[in-house]
Amino acid sequence: MRTRQSRLTASEYVDGILAGSRVTLARAITLIESDLPSDADLAAEVLDRILPHTGASRRIGISGVPGSGKSTFIDTLGMHLIRDRNERLAVLSVDPSSPFSGGSILGDKTRMERLAVEDHAFIRPSPARGHLGGVARRTRPAMLLCEAAGFRNVIVETVGVGQSETAVRSMTDFFLLLTIAGAGDELQGIKRGILEMVDCVAVNKADGTNKSNAQRARAELASALHLFPASLTGWTPPVVVCSALAGEGVSQIWDIVLAHHTHLESGGHLAAQRREQSLAWMHELIAIGLEDSFQRHPGVKTRFSEIERSVRDGNTSSFAAANELLHLFMNSHRPPSGE
Amino acid sequence: MRTRQSRLTASEYVDGILAGSRVTLARAITLIESDLPSDADLAAEVLDRILPHTGASRRIGISGVPGSGKSTFIDTLGMHLIRDRNERLAVLSVDPSSPFSGGSILGDKTRMERLAVEDHAFIRPSPARGHLGGVARRTRPAMLLCEAAGFRNVIVETVGVGQSETAVRSMTDFFLLLTIAGAGDELQGIKRGILEMVDCVAVNKADGTNKSNAQRARAELASALHLFPASLTGWTPPVVVCSALAGEGVSQIWDIVLAHHTHLESGGHLAAQRREQSLAWMHELIAIGLEDSFQRHPGVKTRFSEIERSVRDGNTSSFAAANELLHLFMNSHRPPSGE
Repeated sequence: MRTRQSRLTASEYVDGILAGSRVTLARAITLIESDLPSDADLAAEVLDRILPHTGASRRIGISGVPGSGKSTFIDTLGMHLIRDRNERLAVLSVDPSSPFSGGSILGDKTRMERLAVEDHAFIRPSPARGHLGGVARRTRPAMLLCEAAGFRNVIVETVGVGQSETAVRSMTDFFLLLTIAGAGDELQGIKRGILEMVDCVAVNKADGTNKSNAQRARAELASALHLFPASLTGWTPPVVVCSALAGEGVSQIWDIVLAHHTHLESGGHLAAQRREQSLAWMHELIAIGLEDSFQRHPGVKTRFSEIERSVRDGNTSSFAAANELLHLFMNSHRPPSGE
Repeated sequence: MRTRQSRLTASEYVDGILAGSRVTLARAITLIESDLPSDADLAAEVLDRILPHTGASRRIGISGVPGSGKSTFIDTLGMHLIRDRNERLAVLSVDPSSPFSGGSILGDKTRMERLAVEDHAFIRPSPARGHLGGVARRTRPAMLLCEAAGFRNVIVETVGVGQSETAVRSMTDFFLLLTIAGAGDELQGIKRGILEMVDCVAVNKADGTNKSNAQRARAELASALHLFPASLTGWTPPVVVCSALAGEGVSQIWDIVLAHHTHLESGGHLAAQRREQSLAWMHELIAIGLEDSFQRHPGVKTRFSEIERSVRDGNTSSFAAANELLHLFMNSHRPPSGE
């Protein structure tokens, strides 16, 4: 448990956020990331009150294969938005692989050198700390807070470990995959399943002698994507090349983001998709909350490792194991009125 | 709640199953499918006791795009196994789309006309009844019971609705996708994500004038699959053609099943994969059990629809909604010792 600087009231949080205060925004995100049960109610109240002021932003998920130059890309894209399009943007990071990345603020900020010092950009590193459901519980509300604080563009980037892409996909409107030209097999390094969820693929580092390789990778990816059935909204994911370092192709990618947004809005898909996302989020938070209190239950805690080992060794069926643990949890948690 | 014929004891179930009694096997599966909490302990005991007698079978998942002739294929494959290879097989069906398919025994059996009257085949229709977690809670234990009853081959077929393929994949060693030649785009009808999980694709109905179309579809699918990164075990999914109606290519597919099994066994992958599956199954059963008692909680029940509507309408944040519902559940479910 951490000690905490003097707490703001819900109204102070809400007023500060709506006034666009970056300091209050940062503190509100910290509140939401808190593991203290006593913070949960306050966080819920703040979120409820800023809710009417959310929804106006473009929510963009970005994932990249290792070495694809994701930080440079976001840095370049962000500077383009600020300088050439007069936009403000927030960048949230999801990195479930790093248990201590909550402390890597400096690391994250220096990854995007130019953006980090821009008043019109708000960069927040990953809070996931390896926690179950970190994205649902922390990143999604953080996105809403950024929206309420007036950021019209929220980028959620993920390093692509585990289920993080699916989680990021489920909270954004647009999902961009960044890749680079490989040697021979152009899908090498692209995780299974990810091509099914992209709205755009960009082959980065298309500069110098690498340009023709990137073009070839682009063509190969385009024909691979063409084989997939169309998405429910009728959007066909474009495959493009760019060079974040040289600043080439980045503006075109933003045009694709805007075209996609218009496409979603005009078909009524945006509202429907976000409604589904909200409901799914609620269900996920419930599942996480239940799992949490299960894992914290003293009786469950005592037996869990032993039972798990027994299942792994083939001595107990998964069925019997789950049954015993659920009994431990439920028997000390009977509803007051019976059923 | 159903009334039930006189219950067997755990020993009667176990002895009957191990003796290969089809009647006892069928009754044990019914026990496992039961929603009665009082049956859960007995089911867990039976499963625990037959557990040492499980694991010897080949576990095969089969999905098919609509119109691919899945029933005929399984019928032909099953007859081939029985007549030409002296094997016995069990066929379990998963159909989460049909809320009443628990009663469609006749329908399921007549789908596989020849197998249905074979002593060496055991066909059990879908018990899923649209239930959350039906596969984990019912189909997976049913598979173990079939194994203990001496069936060396268990086929789990799915109609491919919702997450059913993922569920079937997670309980089998080998996953076969059945498809047919389409018009132009050969991946039409193949669900997003499914190519990522197959161990073999068979283009069925490769007979008569359709033969060359099937061959072309096969080539196109093979090159699409080639684009995916290799699986963790190093297995490359073959793409073949067959005609279940003419009985052509079915035996070759079974040879692929056997080759894959040898491949998994020789690399130590089979044991590792099944261990992971058991653990994942335990975790899934726990999540389902928690969700169940949450949904049945009187306080939650009263508020749920209203809160869900409020989230859908954008009046309550998912965060606050989950928070309120979890409070309702937890406050009447405090651990005895407090924390």
